[in-house]
Amino acid sequence: MRYLLWIEYDGAPFCGWQIQPNGITVQEKLQEALQIFLKTPTLVTASGRTDAGVHARKQVAHFDVEPPLDSPKILRSLNGLLAPSIAITHLAPTHDTFHARFDAKIRYYQYKIAVQPVALEKDFRWEIRQKLDLDLMNEAAKQLLGTHHFGSFCIAKSETPNKVCTLYEAEFKKETIDGYYTFHIQGNRFLHGMVRAIVGTLVQIGQGKREVSEIPSILAAQDRTQAGKSSPAKGLCLYDVLY
Amino acid sequence: MRYLLWIEYDGAPFCGWQIQPNGITVQEKLQEALQIFLKTPTLVTASGRTDAGVHARKQVAHFDVEPPLDSPKILRSLNGLLAPSIAITHLAPTHDTFHARFDAKIRYYQYKIAVQPVALEKDFRWEIRQKLDLDLMNEAAKQLLGTHHFGSFCIAKSETPNKVCTLYEAEFKKETIDGYYTFHIQGNRFLHGMVRAIVGTLVQIGQGKREVSEIPSILAAQDRTQAGKSSPAKGLCLYDVLY
Repeated sequence: MRYLLWIEYDGAPFCGWQIQPNGITVQEKLQEALQIFLKTPTLVTASGRTDAGVHARKQVAHFDVEPPLDSPKILRSLNGLLAPSIAITHLAPTHDTFHARFDAKIRYYQYKIAVQPVALEKDFRWEIRQKLDLDLMNEAAKQLLGTHHFGSFCIAKSETPNKVCTLYEAEFKKETIDGYYTFHIQGNRFLHGMVRAIVGTLVQIGQGKREVSEIPSILAAQDRTQAGKSSPAKGLCLYDVLY
Repeated sequence: MRYLLWIEYDGAPFCGWQIQPNGITVQEKLQEALQIFLKTPTLVTASGRTDAGVHARKQVAHFDVEPPLDSPKILRSLNGLLAPSIAITHLAPTHDTFHARFDAKIRYYQYKIAVQPVALEKDFRWEIRQKLDLDLMNEAAKQLLGTHHFGSFCIAKSETPNKVCTLYEAEFKKETIDGYYTFHIQGNRFLHGMVRAIVGTLVQIGQGKREVSEIPSILAAQDRTQAGKSSPAKGLCLYDVLY
C-alpha cells in the first residue's frame, strides 16, 4: 500500500533532503523513524531534493508498506520521534500509481528577504542592509519566465544533463511591513542551487551592481560564473508541490 | 519634533512592552538605546502594552526629540544596538499631535495554533496535539463580536476600570497546511490577557470541553474564573495597529 506524506522541516540542522555519506539529512532521519515503527527498511521518495539549510513548509513524499497502517497512530509516533526539526503534517493512503517526484507538476518556492534587520523569522530570512529597487528586480525576474536553459543558474558541478526548465512565476512581492519582501517562484522543475542563484542575481540588480539588460546574455552563456553570487540557504523554503 | 516608530520584536526574552521594576522589557531596551544616540532620556509611547512573551510584528510608538534627526542613520544605529530580538522597521518624523496610543483606532492581533507538531515557527505557535472543531470555535467567536464587557476575559487583578471593548473581527482561518490555523482578532482596545483568555476558551469549545452556548453567560458573569485557561503567550503576535 502506498502512503502520501507532507513534511515540514527546519533545514538549518540538515545537509539537505537526500541521504548522503557525510552529514545528517531529512530523508535519513525520516527513514530511520519509519523503520522503527514499520519494522522494515522503507524508502521515502520526495518530490525532489532540497539543499543543505533549505527549509520546507510542504515537502511531498511517498512510501510503500504492507499491511495497511493505523495512519493517525503512526503520524503521532513519527512526530514524537522526529521533533523538533521535522514535522509530518499529513499522512494518508494514496493510489498505487502516485509518484511524489514524477507526478509533481509545479514546485513552488518562497525566498524571504528584508532590507533591514528583523527580529522575527531571523533564521528564515536574508537580511540585506541596503535598499533594493524592487521594480528593477521584478523586471529582470519577468525575463526568466517561460522555458529556458538555466545552466547559468545551476551549481557548476551539477551532473543533471537536462538544464531546461519552465518558470511560471518569478516575482518579489511586498509584505505588510516596509522593506520585507517575499520572492515567489514556481516552475516545473528546479536545478541544484537554481533558486538561490536567481535570487542572488536579482538582488545584485536591485542594488545597482548589474543591469536588467544582462539577463538574456546570462541565460545564453549557460555558465554559472556569469550569474550572481548565491543567496543564503536560510531564506529559501519549499512552499508547496502541486500535482 | 515627534517621530513615529514601527517596532518588531520576539517577545520570548522580555517581560512585555512596558518598563517594570523586575525584568527586562522592550520599552526599557528601546529607551536605553535611544538615550545613547540622542544623548537625552527619551520616553517612548506605544499603542499599548503587550504581555510577557507576546511578539509584535508591528508595534507602533512615538517619541519627541529636538533637533531633527538623521532618521536613516539613527534607524541603522538603533537596529545595530537592539539586535537580535528587537528590530525597528520604520522611523520617520510625524506631526506633533500624533499619539501612538490615543489615536490608535484598531489593534489587530494574530494567534497561531496547530493541531499537530510544527517544525517551523516553533516559538510562535501553540501546538495542540488534538483535533479541534473549527466551525464550533468560529460560531462561538462570532458571539464575541461587537461591544461587550470583557471582564471574564481579563486577568483578575486588572485595575482597568473600563472593561468594555468592541471587537470587529474574531475568526480562526485555515492556513495552507492542514491543521494550521491563525486566529485573527481586531478590536478598538484589548484588556490585559484578553486575547489569550479568548483563545483558551475557544480552544476548549473546539475540544468539546465547553459548549458554544456558554459564551453569553461567560460574558455576563464578568468574572475571569468563568472563561477558559489562557493560551500560551508564544502564539500571540501584535500584527498591526490602525490609525
